[in-house]
Amino acid sequence: MKLLGYWRSSATYRVRIALALKGLDYDYQPVNLLKGEQSGAEYLKKNPQALVPTLVTDAGEEISQSLAIIEFLQETFPSPSVLPKTPILRAKARAIAAAIACEAQPFANLRIQKYLTETLGVSDEAKAAFLNRWPGGALNAVEAMACETAGAFCVGDEPTIADAFLVPQIFASRRFNIDLSNCPTLLAIDERCQKLPAFIKAHPDNQPDAVKG
Amino acid sequence: MKLLGYWRSSATYRVRIALALKGLDYDYQPVNLLKGEQSGAEYLKKNPQALVPTLVTDAGEEISQSLAIIEFLQETFPSPSVLPKTPILRAKARAIAAAIACEAQPFANLRIQKYLTETLGVSDEAKAAFLNRWPGGALNAVEAMACETAGAFCVGDEPTIADAFLVPQIFASRRFNIDLSNCPTLLAIDERCQKLPAFIKAHPDNQPDAVKG
Repeated sequence: MKLLGYWRSSATYRVRIALALKGLDYDYQPVNLLKGEQSGAEYLKKNPQALVPTLVTDAGEEISQSLAIIEFLQETFPSPSVLPKTPILRAKARAIAAAIACEAQPFANLRIQKYLTETLGVSDEAKAAFLNRWPGGALNAVEAMACETAGAFCVGDEPTIADAFLVPQIFASRRFNIDLSNCPTLLAIDERCQKLPAFIKAHPDNQPDAVKG
Repeated sequence: MKLLGYWRSSATYRVRIALALKGLDYDYQPVNLLKGEQSGAEYLKKNPQALVPTLVTDAGEEISQSLAIIEFLQETFPSPSVLPKTPILRAKARAIAAAIACEAQPFANLRIQKYLTETLGVSDEAKAAFLNRWPGGALNAVEAMACETAGAFCVGDEPTIADAFLVPQIFASRRFNIDLSNCPTLLAIDERCQKLPAFIKAHPDNQPDAVKG
């Protein structure tokens, strides 16, 4: 398999975590977002949304969207699982992943931040308030969700798809100075995840396209 | 089962479509978003995100997030399926659903539109441009995705989770005057869906809490 992605992209980071939790080998092919490679004609043929990541299967099929890619990996390589054992707990884990993917990350994305500043002329103060209201507010709600389901990880005592979405969102939140002071459960889970080999392997800083400094 | 939702909410509409495609009976309990019922203490206990819908199972378990609810319904009541037959086509259908849920709907949501106008002081013209750039742009990309996979519906010739996400997004796009002129494939699929009993049953106008006029 090939993973086309970018070291600091949250969605790419999620998929790297799932691949690492499953112990799957893949060829990592950087798409440099700063150079606009995601909007090049060749990449658009693989991913019309001009977003990373794209998973390319051994049969040459291209899959976009981290939620869809991780469900595909789970169906195709079911063990070890990144979903809990019962339908209700699977729903709880997927709900946390979806809350992060649909309510937090869309508003933390760099392209939206640039649009706020460059197109809407929003001040730095108003942008900071926006980030704390939307992606920050969404994580506060995820904290409440995790309080119901967490053991050592978001849902129970094994890492799942929920943790694969949480850890990149905490990473992005710190990068953009989003207030996490009301998320002690999530921060404790993040700290536990950071010690696991799969999460270390998937970390942005440990990718070949990482830019140091 | 109970579905707590709102007639015009896109996410509630998606779940109603999936329930109807599966022929499942449920008790529909309106949550009046205009009266702020989603932020009341009782509802927040069920759904800390203060979002609709929430599915309450017969065992009293509460599930939030339309993607998680529909995957739960699919696992629990697998036939008729709302997913295609092969892992790759399932991934393609989930990718369309996720693209709509993560890139289109977050930016079309009424609460974001209000924030743009009331908090950021954005003009009507700039808000219209925002809607065409973000939720509109996302649907243009979904058009390209669907061009690869569509038969009569988004992926093949049976309605799937992709159509359950598409039809509410088209409904919202029309409501907010988002330009759909570059989405002929999606509009043709929407028209086919509108003729099916499951989609008619799920339509906002046919809910007990619909406000006419």
